[in-house]
Amino acid sequence: MDWAAAEWTAGEVRLWPMHGDAEGAAITAPAGDDPVAALRAMLAPGVAIDVIAAGWPGTAPVRVPCPPPPPLPALALDPQVTLHRLPGLVQDRPADLIGAQATRIAGHLARHPDFDGVLCLPGPQSVWAQISAGEVVSFRSFLTGELLSALTASADESTGFAEAVQDALSRPAGLAAELSSVRARLALDRITPSDAHAQTAGLLIGAELAGARPWWLGQPVTVIGQGWLADRYAEALVLQGVTPAMADPTRALLDGFRAARRTL
Amino acid sequence: MDWAAAEWTAGEVRLWPMHGDAEGAAITAPAGDDPVAALRAMLAPGVAIDVIAAGWPGTAPVRVPCPPPPPLPALALDPQVTLHRLPGLVQDRPADLIGAQATRIAGHLARHPDFDGVLCLPGPQSVWAQISAGEVVSFRSFLTGELLSALTASADESTGFAEAVQDALSRPAGLAAELSSVRARLALDRITPSDAHAQTAGLLIGAELAGARPWWLGQPVTVIGQGWLADRYAEALVLQGVTPAMADPTRALLDGFRAARRTL
Repeated sequence: MDWAAAEWTAGEVRLWPMHGDAEGAAITAPAGDDPVAALRAMLAPGVAIDVIAAGWPGTAPVRVPCPPPPPLPALALDPQVTLHRLPGLVQDRPADLIGAQATRIAGHLARHPDFDGVLCLPGPQSVWAQISAGEVVSFRSFLTGELLSALTASADESTGFAEAVQDALSRPAGLAAELSSVRARLALDRITPSDAHAQTAGLLIGAELAGARPWWLGQPVTVIGQGWLADRYAEALVLQGVTPAMADPTRALLDGFRAARRTL
Repeated sequence: MDWAAAEWTAGEVRLWPMHGDAEGAAITAPAGDDPVAALRAMLAPGVAIDVIAAGWPGTAPVRVPCPPPPPLPALALDPQVTLHRLPGLVQDRPADLIGAQATRIAGHLARHPDFDGVLCLPGPQSVWAQISAGEVVSFRSFLTGELLSALTASADESTGFAEAVQDALSRPAGLAAELSSVRARLALDRITPSDAHAQTAGLLIGAELAGARPWWLGQPVTVIGQGWLADRYAEALVLQGVTPAMADPTRALLDGFRAARRTL
């Protein structure tokens, strides 16, 4: 490999060996509080290499509005490994902070330099970012995905998502009571565990859309995400009359790394 | 002991040996999915005993409006142990269900038979119950406490609770974003972990009060609860100009068992 890309997320380091612009298969290792040790163990000893890292702990974020930030000055971890950390983004009012999602945003802008509108990145912490003239103007994150994981397990076939979205959008103050109602219907065997998960997701995403209304109303929206949760965000937006474009989150992240590599 | 009182809650059986109306010290045992086995192991073998149980799994709930329900027909677990299960309460619209909290409500009404107003029971699943003429007219539960546990750990000295309550009450749709903002301020070292917990609690309780407004506005409210979380509910209500009475939740539960015992 010529260089490597690494993301620190949820206590894990994910590493892609890179050959020019082409990525190899990702490998993942648990990192706990010491991602540097995990990273070293994933690299061949005695070979000099540049590693570009996103979401790295202890990396000072850059204040919006700003273009996607370049890597911080290189850090020699040892005579072989040189670390190039990509900063996250911070906002003062309302106070907000994102890490590796900033690199996905950078990657999307590297591929679509003229994009003007809103990026929505579903996940444990979902992010809405307003993009204009190549800059991240402002952003807002929501703990929706984390709340969903805390409340229910995953879904197969299910019903009631769309109704739950509309319920929560029209009466967001009723959220904690409606969540409890879903729990009651499940305990009474009126719905399946999959229905309960879908309806819980619908309530939480509906409440997020109520809070994020200025972000998507009348805006061109691209959802950078893949899988069940991202599909539900797209479905909920379509229910409000907004048809989002969809973008692959891994490709966006790797595009962010590739763009950073060109600045070294 | 003359008889025993048992509560099944969060995978545990808690048992009080009872001498007439006087309770002995509670003992607790993990129960998993089989509270009967746990209960048997907690009782002296070969001694005939009546056990009155609240929150027991598989007990059909009673539909509101209704007075606090008496025990279901006795169930002989074996030649020695006779189980008297106290039903929970169920509501059709909005769908809702409570278990052992119904026995706390019964106990409060046994001690205060003329109570007319609203009972608020904080906990992992908080409950608001409208009481009139000795009946539970309707109720509503909220997953506020469970969401709080999922998001943050416990608090010592802290600031920002009251402001968070008011924020969420005035803009409940912003909940998931405000929760994320607390997380960001913590990551940026602008607040302590205790502040983050208190502010998260303030946002969640404020959002609950926004959803539960018809329950407390202009009503006499009694909070059946004790400890940090119950004190925060009381504080949040006082901020809205409602000064609740406070009642001990263990005393209310035991009063409910004692009232049920008199019906045997």
